[in-house]
Amino acid sequence: MEESPLPDLSLAGGKTTFTLQYPLRRMTPVDVDRLRADLETNAAFGAIDTDDPDARGRTVLTGSEANRSARDYLCDRLEDAGLRIEVDAVGNITGTWASESADPDAPPVAAGSHLDSVPEGGIFDGPLGVYAALEAVRALQSTGAEPDRPLIVVSFTEEEGTRFGGGLLGSSVATGQRSLEDTLALTADDGTTLETALEAIGYRGEGRLDCSAWDAFLEVHVEQDTVLESVGTPVGIVTDVTGITHSSVRIRGSANHAGATAMDERADALAAASEVVLAVESLGQAYAVAGENTAVATVGRCDVSPNATNVIPGEVDLGLDVRDIDGDAMADLLADAERTIREIGDDRGVDTTVERHLEVPPAPMSDRCRDALEAASTTVGVDSPALHSGAAHDAMRISRVTDAGMLFVRSRDGISHNPLEWTDWEDCATAATVLAGALGRLTGCASATIS
Amino acid sequence: MEESPLPDLSLAGGKTTFTLQYPLRRMTPVDVDRLRADLETNAAFGAIDTDDPDARGRTVLTGSEANRSARDYLCDRLEDAGLRIEVDAVGNITGTWASESADPDAPPVAAGSHLDSVPEGGIFDGPLGVYAALEAVRALQSTGAEPDRPLIVVSFTEEEGTRFGGGLLGSSVATGQRSLEDTLALTADDGTTLETALEAIGYRGEGRLDCSAWDAFLEVHVEQDTVLESVGTPVGIVTDVTGITHSSVRIRGSANHAGATAMDERADALAAASEVVLAVESLGQAYAVAGENTAVATVGRCDVSPNATNVIPGEVDLGLDVRDIDGDAMADLLADAERTIREIGDDRGVDTTVERHLEVPPAPMSDRCRDALEAASTTVGVDSPALHSGAAHDAMRISRVTDAGMLFVRSRDGISHNPLEWTDWEDCATAATVLAGALGRLTGCASATIS
Repeated sequence: MEESPLPDLSLAGGKTTFTLQYPLRRMTPVDVDRLRADLETNAAFGAIDTDDPDARGRTVLTGSEANRSARDYLCDRLEDAGLRIEVDAVGNITGTWASESADPDAPPVAAGSHLDSVPEGGIFDGPLGVYAALEAVRALQSTGAEPDRPLIVVSFTEEEGTRFGGGLLGSSVATGQRSLEDTLALTADDGTTLETALEAIGYRGEGRLDCSAWDAFLEVHVEQDTVLESVGTPVGIVTDVTGITHSSVRIRGSANHAGATAMDERADALAAASEVVLAVESLGQAYAVAGENTAVATVGRCDVSPNATNVIPGEVDLGLDVRDIDGDAMADLLADAERTIREIGDDRGVDTTVERHLEVPPAPMSDRCRDALEAASTTVGVDSPALHSGAAHDAMRISRVTDAGMLFVRSRDGISHNPLEWTDWEDCATAATVLAGALGRLTGCASATIS
Repeated sequence: MEESPLPDLSLAGGKTTFTLQYPLRRMTPVDVDRLRADLETNAAFGAIDTDDPDARGRTVLTGSEANRSARDYLCDRLEDAGLRIEVDAVGNITGTWASESADPDAPPVAAGSHLDSVPEGGIFDGPLGVYAALEAVRALQSTGAEPDRPLIVVSFTEEEGTRFGGGLLGSSVATGQRSLEDTLALTADDGTTLETALEAIGYRGEGRLDCSAWDAFLEVHVEQDTVLESVGTPVGIVTDVTGITHSSVRIRGSANHAGATAMDERADALAAASEVVLAVESLGQAYAVAGENTAVATVGRCDVSPNATNVIPGEVDLGLDVRDIDGDAMADLLADAERTIREIGDDRGVDTTVERHLEVPPAPMSDRCRDALEAASTTVGVDSPALHSGAAHDAMRISRVTDAGMLFVRSRDGISHNPLEWTDWEDCATAATVLAGALGRLTGCASATIS
């Protein structure tokens, strides 16, 4: 696609630097108060009580009443903006702005993220990407922009994978990386299927959203790390979404009485697991140093059986997470970890098994999308450093079937999946402004002017 | 008390070695079939299903229906043997044999153990001590023994501490080491108090059993270790019950995204906890080698928060168990562990706290009780090596207020707190025979003859 000049979404002809927040807010059609009102309204759905004045959390699991309310509110706002709403069979919601200028047959450009949360998660992770996309579309509309193709605001189902497992469910189905039938049949701990859960809240739609028909996709998301905070800039452009592997490590020793079993007669599964945890940490550190500090290796889950103070642990199940934007390095790290785990088991006389149950290769973002975001940042007058994403995002799935890009937004202390997750409203508005510029660039609407 | 010659409970004048099991069984008044029938009937209360043909487990929590059934059956059997039943306020059950020969005012000699189990525990841990005591009394009765004082069979409430915490509850109250009121007010996870639980099954009796009024107490118990198995003898005499400390170790790092947080930005509570687990293991090994292999140090419990594969653990709570029969060495080991935990916390930039919530000094068994058991073993013709107990037992509490002794019985592979716990019926009968001899010796019934 040939690129057209960008609509100037900052002051006509001028540049607004990040330190001049108020001029930026007032002088672009992105309305920080409107965006904030949407995010704060959304934050009330599934809101949790907390004593910390700095904390605002929510629990919005797929198919819950909070999820229904969040979806209903989004649909109202999409409708208010004149967008055509569709809901597919796994509950992915799209709002399409088919402006008069747009060729209805041209592949649309989409932007969005997700509305679900982890338990007691933050209020920005997901919703910021959805409402920044809506705000960007509203901003383009208010400038009189004439996109050459439809623009879509999208909210994907079950990105977090909290209730139905796996994560990225909606985007995986919409990119053909998961079958619709299998996904609808996924079952929560309480026995509810995804299909039933979606029917219960009225969001089991029809058909399958097909992201491969999109021309491009952009996702705004909180950084969940401290790179932007340390650089001192509100937004950054993602180069790659990391590859991810998840494995279960099972260690079987022998449960026995902690008092009656001498130290030299033990097959302590937790002591073996502790060696595994430290070996994984060391491998992560070594690969991070050997590469560009993009490798990470974590044991995040540790389930001990029987887990009583006075019983030598007989069995431990660890959840191992290994990531890197370098796919080969990630594979090497995982193989090293698996070999080390076997050695620890052999040395200690305990059985070990490692089962890989998630292996996602790294996902480079498209140059075209990165360029559009970069150009929009320049126009707005903010630095937008390149950085990688260590977290999985829907954009990772989309990048397999069409051009995808991501814009990260500064997160306070890098905290996420936590009620302390925070992004300043001004930074949210800056991100929406950059997104609007990039969407304008991708849809060739050169004629828009600042209202 | 002046000791009288023992009644000969084995073959008159002869010795029966352990390898001659059948002669032993047939020629003593201890009836292996009767003892086995009692233990097998008791094993049916709270029995759990298991696919392993070698496994027989039970779950008998205090105040459960299984516990009611087990208590009812014991009371029936005590009554059948002509014993006077009393139940105290915390549900301790005693059956007193006040024979015509006995001085009703003389301090009685008692024997017994407990009927409750850990979840999915074995069928011998506790019940063997209760029914071996009953069988020993029945054997003495059948020989025409004339004890000079009352003999008591006792079953203590909540030895395991599974439902109401702490353990050794009944014997702690009966020895004045716990207040009756506080103990009755202990609350299970479901909100039930011990008092309510005992009332529900009809075993909230009156008054307080007072073990300090006893002349002596003997407890038969499965060894829960492999010393007797390796020596090849069915019983052993306990020299000391180990001292025990339990501590909670809390480690607070910072929960964060496993993908988005670089290796050098982490405060991983599980990695710190893993160092603690390995340091505790090393200290236990070092103290065991430096002493007489009686020191043990275990981290048996490890609770991780938030415990998700893709989240760096923010908080870990460990349950630390440190034991030794040498009280000074135990204190040193614990102090070393606490210092090491602080150092690990300092090195890793995580907060650590250690809270001691159980500190029980070692409990030496009385020479008089050990001698009585030793003499009875010799008479029966079995070797009874001296060994220590690494596990806590009710006898530990009793030893603070009167003379106490323990007889250990060979456990298959040392396994306990597990459906694979097993002690051969012949070994059970041998233990009951030795116990009967020791009880006879302690009650001066020299005139008994083999029936």
